[in-house]
Amino acid sequence: MNYPGISIQLPLWIQDLVDRSSGVFSSKEDRMRFVITLSRKNVEHQTGGPFGAAIFDDQGRLVAPGVNLVLSTHCSIFHAEITAIAMAQTLLGRYDLSDDGKVSYALYASTEPCAMCFGAIPWSGVSRLVCGARDEDARRIGFDEGPKMDAWVDALETRKIKVVRDLLRAEAVSVLDDYAASGGVIYNSGKTLRGEG
Amino acid sequence: MNYPGISIQLPLWIQDLVDRSSGVFSSKEDRMRFVITLSRKNVEHQTGGPFGAAIFDDQGRLVAPGVNLVLSTHCSIFHAEITAIAMAQTLLGRYDLSDDGKVSYALYASTEPCAMCFGAIPWSGVSRLVCGARDEDARRIGFDEGPKMDAWVDALETRKIKVVRDLLRAEAVSVLDDYAASGGVIYNSGKTLRGEG
Repeated sequence: MNYPGISIQLPLWIQDLVDRSSGVFSSKEDRMRFVITLSRKNVEHQTGGPFGAAIFDDQGRLVAPGVNLVLSTHCSIFHAEITAIAMAQTLLGRYDLSDDGKVSYALYASTEPCAMCFGAIPWSGVSRLVCGARDEDARRIGFDEGPKMDAWVDALETRKIKVVRDLLRAEAVSVLDDYAASGGVIYNSGKTLRGEG
Repeated sequence: MNYPGISIQLPLWIQDLVDRSSGVFSSKEDRMRFVITLSRKNVEHQTGGPFGAAIFDDQGRLVAPGVNLVLSTHCSIFHAEITAIAMAQTLLGRYDLSDDGKVSYALYASTEPCAMCFGAIPWSGVSRLVCGARDEDARRIGFDEGPKMDAWVDALETRKIKVVRDLLRAEAVSVLDDYAASGGVIYNSGKTLRGEG
């Protein structure tokens, strides 16, 4: 059996968007606005669902952007946060972004993480999570956020990962609402599953 | 900015291992023994941590194997379960393995899933999870299983994903113990993280 590679490429429009920026996003709002722009353009360019994320260093420099690539990759793993984390780790060449606690990175997400992305955050080595829309905003338009514990913020903060919520929430929500209004695909996996036999 | 691709390749020894098998694993024990073999050989070949996983169809045919590739890819995302799910979805060309509930696949894992892999399972479209070692067996040798809810089995079964635990647990645990005894890297990300400033 000759297994193919699993290969993920960011859409070209992201490279153009980054090239047109200074690459430094001074305020929290600038950083959040960038990931909301990613979420909106991912819909406009039809490259995936209405979710954007990015890793920034402690000076506000963009390390790696990410968008939801579930539809284009045919792979349920590549949510925006996962894509951003994997790209940052690929660029820096280490699986622990913090380099064993020596450096600090933040994950910005246009919507709060689903159960999978929540679980991925402690492994990534980021020390901060900043979110726009709430998970309930995603659920309201039909996305399933998965079996995430109610106390997920506390669970991250216990692990010394600071969580900031509701930053430019209305702007982030407007992308979700526009996606739903335009008939965007809500790509939850099938709920009615048969047994193994 | 010219972002590189994120490209994951299974180690060549897995292709050899699969080629030497019939590709069909009739019993649950055969399937579990295969993923435990993956976990052991991943250590022997020094291609990653002591974890193996695979997707099987409802006839016991191997769809896709996976091993932990965190160290070799420098990416915290590629746990064995994630690798197996992504490979199966790549091969079948769909993000929902169940094809909207029409077909049934099982994920076998040599050790119970961490918080991230637990959250990834509902998105994958598998309808069954079968585990060897318990998460507490992984924690005992120092791996952090992440912030996973206590009632994780119930949370999957509520979503119609059947969970089977402790299948050949002792064989699975022996790989974890051998890995720890040989001084294998326990690659949790740094706990002492600094703030954003």
